[in-house]
Amino acid sequence: MSRAAPPVRGDFVRWRRIATRWADNDAYGHVNNTVYYQWFDSAVNAMLIEEGLLDIASGDPIALVVGTSCNYFAPLSFPGDVDVGLAVVELGRSSVRYQLGVFRADNDLAAAAGEFVHVAVNRSERRPVPWPPQWRRLFQNSATTELEEASPKL
Amino acid sequence: MSRAAPPVRGDFVRWRRIATRWADNDAYGHVNNTVYYQWFDSAVNAMLIEEGLLDIASGDPIALVVGTSCNYFAPLSFPGDVDVGLAVVELGRSSVRYQLGVFRADNDLAAAAGEFVHVAVNRSERRPVPWPPQWRRLFQNSATTELEEASPKL
Amino acid sequence: MSRAAPPVRGDFVRWRRIATRWADNDAYGHVNNTVYYQWFDSAVNAMLIEEGLLDIASGDPIALVVGTSCNYFAPLSFPGDVDVGLAVVELGRSSVRYQLGVFRADNDLAAAAGEFVHVAVNRSERRPVPWPPQWRRLFQNSATTELEEASPKL
Amino acid sequence: MSRAAPPVRGDFVRWRRIATRWADNDAYGHVNNTVYYQWFDSAVNAMLIEEGLLDIASGDPIALVVGTSCNYFAPLSFPGDVDVGLAVVELGRSSVRYQLGVFRADNDLAAAAGEFVHVAVNRSERRPVPWPPQWRRLFQNSATTELEEASPKL
Repeated sequence: MSRAAPPVRGDFVRWRRIATRWADNDAYGHVNNTVYYQWFDSAVNAMLIEEGLLDIASGDPIALVVGTSCNYFAPLSFPGDVDVGLAVVELGRSSVRYQLGVFRADNDLAAAAGEFVHVAVNRSERRPVPWPPQWRRLFQNSATTELEEASPKL
Repeated sequence: MSRAAPPVRGDFVRWRRIATRWADNDAYGHVNNTVYYQWFDSAVNAMLIEEGLLDIASGDPIALVVGTSCNYFAPLSFPGDVDVGLAVVELGRSSVRYQLGVFRADNDLAAAAGEFVHVAVNRSERRPVPWPPQWRRLFQNSATTELEEASPKL
Repeated sequence: MSRAAPPVRGDFVRWRRIATRWADNDAYGHVNNTVYYQWFDSAVNAMLIEEGLLDIASGDPIALVVGTSCNYFAPLSFPGDVDVGLAVVELGRSSVRYQLGVFRADNDLAAAAGEFVHVAVNRSERRPVPWPPQWRRLFQNSATTELEEASPKL
Repeated sequence: MSRAAPPVRGDFVRWRRIATRWADNDAYGHVNNTVYYQWFDSAVNAMLIEEGLLDIASGDPIALVVGTSCNYFAPLSFPGDVDVGLAVVELGRSSVRYQLGVFRADNDLAAAAGEFVHVAVNRSERRPVPWPPQWRRLFQNSATTELEEASPKL
């Protein structure tokens, strides 16, 4: 059960500021562990939507979540905003792996960091399809380093 | 089942901007009706905390919610921010009633509006206590008009 | 700011048991006020779906929420289940008003009670339409008393 | 980005049935990826509370979450219940790793599976402390196999 060290702001490429909510705090007075995944989801999908790639209501393909993980380094609490950083760390034919970091507005060391894997599927059957070229371009531009290719399966 | 008309920005005194989240959208593609209450809760409590009145972890009194309501006028969707406006509309010995309005960032007409009633209680027994003078002052300064007194019971 | 008295189990017609979740508890150690609305939503829509009326993905009409309210009488906490009771209290051409009560599994007096107003809309334009006959029948069978007609507007 | 195969019911030791909620479904009509973590949290903590070990309000130690992960194999939707299975897979001096599986009520193959790591901390300073003997006993009884010891660090 060894744990990775917290990343810093320089490890991320794209940013989103999100307000905490009263209901985010759980019985121990800190943001509940499940809320970080709401932030991950929001940072990733907002990027895809704002870049004109993902259309939730009628676009094709859509991106489904197949795996997520998070390590928690320091507690966060409502009120206050958090900055969510995102970097693409692996790109496959139909899949992409994002690294995400959550930072207090005044801090350079992540309070939490995790991963989030999206798979491109067609809307009707929800079967994997290749990423369209514009999506691939965005992913490549959202990486800190040359992207390693994902395993051939995905 | 007649419904009130949507309020406008001028009906509110204090403001808070809150980011929508992916998970806020429900199966119909719009922010779920329960999420508006998370925003109400956040706008009210953030004000109390940032004014130095409410200390969630150890302060006394705390404010408990005894009633809430909301009317929905127009749908909202992730992504995008909302502005939550707040005005105190009634002040009692131990209770306060807030009116709240939710606005799209680019709109003067509320997408939803509701009420939220707080009661001051002591931390240990959670029995009603009078609002301390600084709390009353904040409530009076957060009203658009002279406040009507609440019924003697509260 | 006078408050209604808590209803009892005999005031409700249909029931749903729902498990509380860890994240439901907020910083004061009790179920957050917004969660009760998740339970209302779930009790109402599960009834409509299980009766074969509402099809979330492709049915027509669908039912949108236009207003909700809740009064909180006694705190609830994770863990443990709650029973959510439902009764239809008003039926209009395109609208229906439900009363809802939340009970601890071992208690006859509601911990919270509220209202929830649904309007029938067509899926494509989301404009009000009359309730189909089978929906009206369900609503009439879910009332404790002869239903009063809603105002002509809805 | 290869993925583990879905576990089966026989891989888990303790069970909890949880009702889905309307708000769990997101814009794609399925339970949002963040909700599974609410179920993990609830299954783990309910076990600790019902066994008389964890007292949220005043007990010592408490258990904090330091890492979570989940793989999603098949979509789930409201309405309907899910069964959450739990097995302890690693036990350290102050840490424990649970494996969790989410099953549709009528299915033997997990729709999702993940891990959840708790660390024992004292309430006042939130510093790691050894698990009390009764906690260790519960963890050992909740494993499917002889437990491997965690790394010395935790």
